[in-house]
Amino acid sequence: MPSIPETSAAELARLCGGRIAGDGKRVVRGVRSLERAGADDLSFASDGKALRRAESSAAGVLLVRAGAGLPGRTLIEVDDPTAALAAVLEAFFPRRTADAGVHPTAIVGPWAEVDPSAEVGPYAVVGTGSRVGRGAIVEAHVAIGRRCTVGDGAWLHPHVVLYDDVRIGPRTEVHSGAVLGADGFGYAVGKAGFRKVPQVGGVELDADVEIGANSCVDRATLEATRIGAGTKVDDLVMLGHNCEVGRSSLLCGQAGLAGSSVVGDGVVLGGQVGVAGHLRIGNGVKAGAQSGISKDVPDGDEVNGSPHMPYRDSMRVQAELRRLPETARLVRSLSKGGGA
Amino acid sequence: MPSIPETSAAELARLCGGRIAGDGKRVVRGVRSLERAGADDLSFASDGKALRRAESSAAGVLLVRAGAGLPGRTLIEVDDPTAALAAVLEAFFPRRTADAGVHPTAIVGPWAEVDPSAEVGPYAVVGTGSRVGRGAIVEAHVAIGRRCTVGDGAWLHPHVVLYDDVRIGPRTEVHSGAVLGADGFGYAVGKAGFRKVPQVGGVELDADVEIGANSCVDRATLEATRIGAGTKVDDLVMLGHNCEVGRSSLLCGQAGLAGSSVVGDGVVLGGQVGVAGHLRIGNGVKAGAQSGISKDVPDGDEVNGSPHMPYRDSMRVQAELRRLPETARLVRSLSKGGGA
Amino acid sequence: MPSIPETSAAELARLCGGRIAGDGKRVVRGVRSLERAGADDLSFASDGKALRRAESSAAGVLLVRAGAGLPGRTLIEVDDPTAALAAVLEAFFPRRTADAGVHPTAIVGPWAEVDPSAEVGPYAVVGTGSRVGRGAIVEAHVAIGRRCTVGDGAWLHPHVVLYDDVRIGPRTEVHSGAVLGADGFGYAVGKAGFRKVPQVGGVELDADVEIGANSCVDRATLEATRIGAGTKVDDLVMLGHNCEVGRSSLLCGQAGLAGSSVVGDGVVLGGQVGVAGHLRIGNGVKAGAQSGISKDVPDGDEVNGSPHMPYRDSMRVQAELRRLPETARLVRSLSKGGGA
Repeated sequence: MPSIPETSAAELARLCGGRIAGDGKRVVRGVRSLERAGADDLSFASDGKALRRAESSAAGVLLVRAGAGLPGRTLIEVDDPTAALAAVLEAFFPRRTADAGVHPTAIVGPWAEVDPSAEVGPYAVVGTGSRVGRGAIVEAHVAIGRRCTVGDGAWLHPHVVLYDDVRIGPRTEVHSGAVLGADGFGYAVGKAGFRKVPQVGGVELDADVEIGANSCVDRATLEATRIGAGTKVDDLVMLGHNCEVGRSSLLCGQAGLAGSSVVGDGVVLGGQVGVAGHLRIGNGVKAGAQSGISKDVPDGDEVNGSPHMPYRDSMRVQAELRRLPETARLVRSLSKGGGA
Repeated sequence: MPSIPETSAAELARLCGGRIAGDGKRVVRGVRSLERAGADDLSFASDGKALRRAESSAAGVLLVRAGAGLPGRTLIEVDDPTAALAAVLEAFFPRRTADAGVHPTAIVGPWAEVDPSAEVGPYAVVGTGSRVGRGAIVEAHVAIGRRCTVGDGAWLHPHVVLYDDVRIGPRTEVHSGAVLGADGFGYAVGKAGFRKVPQVGGVELDADVEIGANSCVDRATLEATRIGAGTKVDDLVMLGHNCEVGRSSLLCGQAGLAGSSVVGDGVVLGGQVGVAGHLRIGNGVKAGAQSGISKDVPDGDEVNGSPHMPYRDSMRVQAELRRLPETARLVRSLSKGGGA
Repeated sequence: MPSIPETSAAELARLCGGRIAGDGKRVVRGVRSLERAGADDLSFASDGKALRRAESSAAGVLLVRAGAGLPGRTLIEVDDPTAALAAVLEAFFPRRTADAGVHPTAIVGPWAEVDPSAEVGPYAVVGTGSRVGRGAIVEAHVAIGRRCTVGDGAWLHPHVVLYDDVRIGPRTEVHSGAVLGADGFGYAVGKAGFRKVPQVGGVELDADVEIGANSCVDRATLEATRIGAGTKVDDLVMLGHNCEVGRSSLLCGQAGLAGSSVVGDGVVLGGQVGVAGHLRIGNGVKAGAQSGISKDVPDGDEVNGSPHMPYRDSMRVQAELRRLPETARLVRSLSKGGGA
């Protein structure tokens, strides 16, 4: 799909800081996947598996790691093909910028301020006392509560909801359907049922955060639920009240954190990971998909499984689990005096 | 709840191609569950468990499989009671059709085309260059991006969001809150944090697809994330970027696919199943609820567990797992020279 | 964040029915977490772990259980610190009440009735024949279908969607993005693919229910999907069609129930729990996070694991699972005639 203006392989190499191997004058008119690229297209191979698929790709030019060993092909050799692809795509498909102005159907409440360089789309609602910063984009149907801040260059896609007292950092991007600041799940349990603990805190997302579609970050009971700079959150993720996530962490799709857990910097939580409440997940922790984390995890640990254990142990346990029926049979045979 | 105009059992049998056993003149005024049906109601029993409940049901008429053996009752015998129920309900509760016209509050962008027979509801927004086909229904607050196609007879429920470059096939139905085309979760990892790879592909849903409420289908990096004809996706499901799902597959609630996985035709993924990235799930594969699929699965396999294994193995492992404390005790006793 | 008007510790104690230990004249100006509270702030410690953190907290006044043993501090001793915190917060941050009136941009359909004391926000749509009760709040962009009822004092946050025939009980609160009444996932499987079973039932939420952000409650096939009074549902939870949940139950984040399951009163389902279809979960059942419930669970049972088992068994199995590689090694050694 993505066509680009005619560009030579050499120019593309310059764009991404790569080195040409082969025909630098080769013309590129599109960027495609390995399977669908043709003679006029650039494609990329970021790892060994992709390199094998690249051998049979018809792509005219390939972004690869230096030493990829694809003789006879026109290559752009780089340190990191994914980063190079990002550089190329950024050049031809730059992030859209604000189309300054407030749509006539948008409703901006009293004491709210929208910077003249910001864009506020059709049917958006900006609540009392909220501020939308320079160059920010607030798309159609976004609902912003009271006393919110949308940072400079932030981008709220259609149908994002901010409850009251939500702060969105500069350049932070929130995808459609995400709900920031809904009440945390906090109740006192009494004989007559549950008594709701009013959730009077807020939500703070630092700079360069990205929140996926339909994800939920609940407001804190008293302080703020926080996400640090550069952290990326995928779709359908839930962050319970009072959680604090550090910088440059990745929370993959459908992961969930119960309330009051603290997650460090550079953490990766795989898809559908669950983290119980009131835990500390250290810096640099990596948790495999579907892990269930029920205890604190120290800095740098790799964990897996539900309940979680060190990654290596988990691999061994999984291998033995597959053999468990056989092992158990052997045990029963031994207990009757038999051998293997 | 669902009342219908007075209809005889014989007429209902004709509607669904069934055979009457008992009193074909019996009058039916409603369609109810086994537990709530009365003498004037039709109910249905699709399996053996339901048949046992049917014995004590007060339903005047029952849709059952031939040979169900409910003596003294008025039965409509069919091959497939669920399909027969569908036929009856379709007759009395047909899918709603477009109420042609664009609501005065809807905003249709430049170069966008809405077929005169289509319905566009209040506060809907149709972006630049997008097309809404014959008889399509675009309900309240739907936000459609640029260059999208909504096929003939497609139905977008309130609050659906389409980003740019999303194609919805004929008769495809998308439930409220679903987000199609949000950016895939793709980053290059550098020393200074994450660099976003622009996601410049699209999303394509073929004909007769159904997408559940609040589900997310991310746009592809370069090509299109695709769902084949007749595939049904439940609520809160996530499809990562570049995934391709075949025809007539079922993805149950809260299932999630990481990026670039390919799922075949006629696949069933149970609730909360997770599929890792870059995998191939063959045609006809069935995966039990909460399975975690981390490797390719060949055509026709039934798998279960996290990590997944063949279904039968999984059942054996689960049975032994319950006995594991006992087995381990026995092992320790044997190792000390003891017997069973 | 939450500041309050100057209030003495003694007054706060009166508000929550507590007993002062220490200086009742101490002035409080805010309610903060233990870590962030200062000399002018009230904080609270609901359990032993929090009490240890309370020792080093700078909070001027602490809500604690009687006998907490924090000598030299000003304490408000209560039976239940969480309930007492709720009482204090309710006093200073009362739930917002309806700002009576229908916003000029809201669309109220024919035969729909909005009580004059209710609030209907900007761009809300109230469908034909629906009713909004006394003091109810319908916020911005809420879409209400046909023949719905929004009970007295109910609160629908921005972007809630009700399909047709949804009944919301008195004081029930629904958070943003929740979708109530989307079609259940019901198909007859034929040779030509899936035939949709029209979903013609409804959804009924009783009084004092709370539904979290982006959760989904599907409409029933024939009757109603029901949630009993006082039950609280967290974010991103899915309730399939025909489910019935009792009173005063808690469904934590990302839990999911397949169709037609019945859940009792006082049940707690942890985060990411999955419940298969057509099951009965008895009163008072507790299920640990990520449990996979595939069979009926009797009243009062505590279960855990996927597949679920009694909680105690699950703990034993988990402990042995961690030792499984070692146990298996021992078995193999024994089978070769070796000892421990």
